[in-house]
Parts: sequence; C-alpha cells; structure tokens
Amino acid sequence: MSLDSSALFTDQYELTMLSAALADGSAHRRCSFEVFARRLPDGRRYGVVAGTPRLIAALASFRFGDAEIDVVSRFLDDATLQWLRKYRFTGEIDGYREGELYFPGSPILSVTGTFAECVVLETLILSILNHDSAIASAAARMVSAADGRPMIEMGSRRTHEESAVAAARAAYLAGFTATSNLEAVRRHGVPGAGTSAHAFTLLHTTPDGPDEAAAFRGQVAALGAGTTLLVDTYDITKGVQTAVEVAGTELGGVRIDSGDLGVLARQVRSQLDDLGATKTKIVVSGDLDEYAVAALRAEPVDVYGVGTAVVVGSGAPTAGMVYKLVEVNGIPVEKRSSLKASRGGAKRAVRFARDTGTVVEEVIYPARGPRPEQDGLEASDLLVPLVRGGEAVADADTLEESRALLAAGLVSLPWEGLKLSHGDPAVPTRFADSHATGRTL
Amino acid sequence: MSLDSSALFTDQYELTMLSAALADGSAHRRCSFEVFARRLPDGRRYGVVAGTPRLIAALASFRFGDAEIDVVSRFLDDATLQWLRKYRFTGEIDGYREGELYFPGSPILSVTGTFAECVVLETLILSILNHDSAIASAAARMVSAADGRPMIEMGSRRTHEESAVAAARAAYLAGFTATSNLEAVRRHGVPGAGTSAHAFTLLHTTPDGPDEAAAFRGQVAALGAGTTLLVDTYDITKGVQTAVEVAGTELGGVRIDSGDLGVLARQVRSQLDDLGATKTKIVVSGDLDEYAVAALRAEPVDVYGVGTAVVVGSGAPTAGMVYKLVEVNGIPVEKRSSLKASRGGAKRAVRFARDTGTVVEEVIYPARGPRPEQDGLEASDLLVPLVRGGEAVADADTLEESRALLAAGLVSLPWEGLKLSHGDPAVPTRFADSHATGRTL
Repeated sequence: MSLDSSALFTDQYELTMLSAALADGSAHRRCSFEVFARRLPDGRRYGVVAGTPRLIAALASFRFGDAEIDVVSRFLDDATLQWLRKYRFTGEIDGYREGELYFPGSPILSVTGTFAECVVLETLILSILNHDSAIASAAARMVSAADGRPMIEMGSRRTHEESAVAAARAAYLAGFTATSNLEAVRRHGVPGAGTSAHAFTLLHTTPDGPDEAAAFRGQVAALGAGTTLLVDTYDITKGVQTAVEVAGTELGGVRIDSGDLGVLARQVRSQLDDLGATKTKIVVSGDLDEYAVAALRAEPVDVYGVGTAVVVGSGAPTAGMVYKLVEVNGIPVEKRSSLKASRGGAKRAVRFARDTGTVVEEVIYPARGPRPEQDGLEASDLLVPLVRGGEAVADADTLEESRALLAAGLVSLPWEGLKLSHGDPAVPTRFADSHATGRTL
Repeated sequence: MSLDSSALFTDQYELTMLSAALADGSAHRRCSFEVFARRLPDGRRYGVVAGTPRLIAALASFRFGDAEIDVVSRFLDDATLQWLRKYRFTGEIDGYREGELYFPGSPILSVTGTFAECVVLETLILSILNHDSAIASAAARMVSAADGRPMIEMGSRRTHEESAVAAARAAYLAGFTATSNLEAVRRHGVPGAGTSAHAFTLLHTTPDGPDEAAAFRGQVAALGAGTTLLVDTYDITKGVQTAVEVAGTELGGVRIDSGDLGVLARQVRSQLDDLGATKTKIVVSGDLDEYAVAALRAEPVDVYGVGTAVVVGSGAPTAGMVYKLVEVNGIPVEKRSSLKASRGGAKRAVRFARDTGTVVEEVIYPARGPRPEQDGLEASDLLVPLVRGGEAVADADTLEESRALLAAGLVSLPWEGLKLSHGDPAVPTRFADSHATGRTL
C-alpha cells in the first residue's frame, strides 16, 4: 500500500453498522465472512485468485490514526471512535493461494473473528481481490493463447495509475514475461521492458522532412543493436530496410504497432530474412486481446505487447466477488431474498483429480464437517492459513511461487478449460450435500 | 497522489527514448504533445474530461529521488540519470477544463516544452485522464437517466482500492450526490453516505432463528429513525412492516437491493403509504447501470445506489485517449502508417453555439492560425492555461466549479445528445481546414 493507513478504503456503511453493533452488543459475536464469486464473467471457464499478498500487506496498515478518525468522527459516536482507535484485526484468515484457480462458489477467502473486526474489512478485501483477480484471469487466457511466446504488459496508460501497478503484477503472475510499468518493477520486482515509441521517430523531423534513419541511429547508438526498432511510423517496408541498414543484421527486433499484424508479420519476416537479419525478432502490439493473440499463432510473431485489453480485464474489469457473513456464533446465516441467496456456514473446499493430474471437480463442504473423499481420485485442500491471530503467516507464497502454481493449475484443467470460446466453467463445483452444478450455484 | 513521487508511474520506453534523445541532442527540441481521443467509446455521444486537478498535483511530485533513480539506473546511462535527478517540468500545459465535454479529436490537453521534459509524462497523463474521464463519462449518463433524483456511488469494492477513490470523485463531478468511499470524503471532500448492509441483519440471528426486528432496533437506536433500513434480507413485505413498526412513520428510508426493483418499489411505496410512512424514501440498488436507472424513472424510487457499473465505466473502462507528438521546432509531425494517422501541429479548439445556448459544432484549428468565426454563432474557447513555466496556474477550477460546468455543458447539447441509445457524437468536430465529421476523425 502506498498510504500510511489503508483504513479509509472503506465504505461508510461498514462503520455505521459497526456503531450500531457496538451499541446493541452484537459487535462481539464470533462471525465468519466468506469471499466467493456467484459466477464467472460471461463465458469464462476459470478464474485466477490474485491480490492476496497485497491484501495481507494492506491489512497490516488498517489503522485509525488521527487523520482517519478526523474523517469518521463526522458521523460516528465516541464509543465507536474509541474502538476504532484501538483497532487491530486479531482474527483468522484462510484462503485459496494466490495463483490458484477458482470457480463459481469457491470459498476463496474465509475471515473469522468478531463481527466488528471483520465487517470493517469488506471493501478493502473486495477491492483488492476483485481487481487483481479480474486482471490475472484475463491475462492467463492471453498467455495460453500466446502458446509460449513472450508477452509484455504495456497497458498502464489505459487505467488508473495505481491500478496499473497492480495490473502489471497480476499479468506477470498470470505468465506475462515483463511489464512497461516502472513502479511495478520497483514495488513488485516484475521484470521491466520497453525501448521506443513513434514520438522518438517523429522527433527526428527537420525542415527537410522526416528522418527515420536519424532516429534509428540515435536509438542504436544509445541502446545498442540489440534494441527493438519501431518500424511503422511511416512506411513499414522502408522502415524495416532502414532499420537493418542502420543497425545491421544483428538488430534485436522490430516492432509493428498498426495494420494487419498477421500479414505484416509475414512480410516483415520475409524481408528481414532476405536482408540477412534472420535472428531479428518481430514484436507486435496494438489493441491485442486474447483472440487477436490466438489469431497470430501461425504467424512469425516472436513477442506480443498487450495494453488496454489486459489492464481492463478484457471485457470483465471486475471479478464480481462478494464478502458475505455466513456464520454467527456457530449458526449458519444466509440472505433469502430473490436471486442473491447465499449459502450459510463457514466452508472449506477440496479439488479432486485423476492420477493423470486432470481435475474432475471441486467440492465445497462445511468447515465443521468431514472432508469428502472420492474413490480413485486424489484430493487437494484449497484453503491455506493466511493470517493467524491477526498476523500474516510466515511462509506466504512469493510472486514466483504463485506464478508457478497458476501455470501448473492451468495444466490440470480438463482440455476444454483452455478454450477461448465462451463456455461453462472448466471444473464443476458442488456443495458436499448437493449435485454438481455448472455455471452458477 | 499518495506516493512521495509519481515519477515511476511511467513506461520504461519513455526513459529509453529519453536516453537516446539526450545522446543525439534531439532531446532539447521544442515540442508539443497533444492528448485526444480518436473516437468515443462505442455508441457514446459525448465524453467528459476528468482528472485534470489530479494530474496537476501528480506533476508536482514527478521527481526522481534516490529511490526512483535506483530503479531506472538498471537500464539507463549516467548522463540520463543526472538529467532525471534535476528533472522539473518547466513547460506549458493548456487543456479543456475539468467537467468540459469532449468529442472525437478534441485537443483535450496540449503540453509544450522540450522533448525530454514532455515525453516522460506520457503515462502519468494518460493514466489519470483515461481513468477519470471514463468514469465521469459513464456517470454523467447515469445522472441524466436519474432525471434529478439523488444518486449514491457505492462501487468501491468492484475496483482497485485507489481507482475507487478517483472514481468516487469522478462520479461526484458528473453529478452523483454522494459516495460510500471514505477516502474520497477525506481526500476530495465528496459527501459521504451509507447506513447498513445485509450482514448487520444476519448478525442478529440467534439459536431461535433470524431476528430482523432486533437488527432494525439496533440500527435505529444508533443512527436514529431518519436512517435507511435494508428490508430485503428475508421477505421484503415483512421487512417493510417490521421497519415501520420499529422506526415509526418517521423512518427516513428503506433500501431494496435485489429483485425486480420497479415492481418492488411500487409495492413498497404502496405499503409504506398504507402504514402512514408517506415520507419514507425508497432507495434502490443492485447492479444498476444507466439503462436500469432510466427504466425506473416512472417508479416511486427516491434515491439510486450505483456500484459496479459506474466504477468500471459501464462498458467503457478507459477513455482511449492518446498522447501524441504533434510538433517539433515549429514543424507539424504525424504518423502515417495505417489507420492510426494523427494530425500534426499544435491545435486549439472553439465551440460554436446558437444564442439559445445549444452547441452546433466544435472546430479544431492550428494554434498559430486565426480563430475561426461563424456568423450568428457564439464562440467559446475550449483550452485554458493549466501550467505556466512548470507551475500550476493559480485560478484552477474547484471540484464544485467543474461539477457546475458539466451540468451546464450537458444542457448545451443538441437534444439527441442525452439519449442513452447508441448513436453518433452529439456535436460534430471538424478541423478548420476540412468538413465536419461524425464519429471518427
């Protein structure tokens, strides 16, 4: 977190509820809240849990100092203000590991403590998980579509400046190779990438007209022949020729950012080969999404640069996770109105796989009940301890471990799971007392 | 900005371009960069400029201290690092006022200075304007659809925790009445709102079962009878009855968060009136977007709560603005490849209106050329000074002034402009030397 305190990343109603609950004594009841998504975004086959380490870090700074109290004192009574001044989360959080796949109803996070200490975390928890999971879920599909070719995330300019940092992290988690975002390099250790833009070529314009060769000479002099030259500012064929003339056949790469990328990649590959620049890579960018990436699979593209689509979740900018009170003093509770009914009681989940590693189903069961078994299938527990007694557990996953977990998870999906086309969730989820279900629970 | 320095909200390529430009001397050429959107999001009729004050504030903290230099020293030469250590933007920025409407090609921001000092700001400028403008543009449509009824922004949980703060601000700019986000209350002075959620009702569950009345008693005791009670946790009709029994006929409001909101609003209004709670307001929420808000116009709804749709831009999470080099040492420059061609030269814009106030067209003209005139139409300049000699101008708009500007701007649109249905931009933009154009330039 970049602020001293994360406590005001909170909806006002959490604090008014708190004041009412403190006043009537219900605030101290032992509660479990659960994070889950009722459904995946339209047509998606899996979701990717992301943001957990950011959440744990933000939890540590969820403190009401003078500056925060000043704001909330406008609508809260003194007893509530006193309680907030001493606020420390002292409860337990279990959750799916970052990089784990999830499906409709998966109990992604389970938060246990008093009502008071849990209810105030709702917005912070959901903001982080909904954003980061939306980006990671979209990014994972792009990585699958790229089929092993490197991908650079370059969408910072299309989203809020802080979202951009978290998006770069989530994209890397999902298998992207690098990011253009320097704050993500600093804060999260994501590898950085980037060389040049059209502005640099245009800058080399004199009263005699454009001088692409001068721009390329400047870039190669500063960054070496291994750099990537952007060849589509004026005429691509001429740009490629000029690039090889200036940099030689050891030129690292050329980037194409406009036009029919498939056709152009073939033309440019052929031209580069004819010029002897057989090792020069072709980088493509420009409004790529998972479908455009997939459509370029058969083309001589070496690296993809993806911008807008990844940072806005490619049509699904939020993961739609909710944070629901499911248990009070050991009693399961649930809302009953309309379609938003939830399922009461603290829950755990187990995923069953064949001995080939392919996942068959995910079963959600009461936390107090026995863990379900299935003959001939291997069971993996999905919830791991994240916070104990208010403190983060010591052996949290690193970003690299989460990245590896997701890569392994995608391999474990049934073969339909990686299809880009719309369809049902790749793995059915069911409650231990019910039949398997598909898209919604 | 919440960080000490905003300098790493930057794409790596801006700094590699900088190093090459410093090396070959082109870095010091006098340049103009321009922010514009080639088109509006699909079917939208106008865009709303938002984020300018956040941008100006972030510009003041765009500084490379030791921490920032440490990151960029991994790929930059010493000369560039020395230059960055001394970086201060010393140029000029003109732009559309925050709250101003924009259309395809509108020169929303014009940044002038050396190439070096301007190029490094690209990502920061675009991140802020693209995010905030996307939210304000979506929110303005919702406000129009609500036709004067108050709207509360409550979408923080569906977006990145920092985006949520900026989104609350942008929604307020667009005419929303209040936000649930407490950090937006602190940081931007947006009015706060919020009372209770389902969790509070569910909390009042005992071994004997749910006790909605106890929850309502607790809330009314703490927050007064003027509070808004959430009546749809179990059975709405029973919930309304219990609410009035507990709070009396002076109950401030009831909130319905699920089901067919139109049908339920009518039923609840009738029930409240029968119970004598004729002044009790009906607040509706639950997956509302501009279309759902409009569909409820004829229903007895008093307040709308809008969440997800507004913070994700209701289908258009980014405004698609770009930052292009348009002039070098007085020479217009433009990219020529493919469809991404831009139009060179620094530009200004003027909007023509009839004496009724209705806008007829927007004309974009060369900054060095004469301002166009049109017989019988009133002309308004659209670009105002924002930064002079690197410093923010003194008389910047307040958020309230921008809010009023937008409200007035929407009234100035031709009548088709406020339609929610897909269509062309409400106001045609044209370049002074060309014919009026519609959707794209």
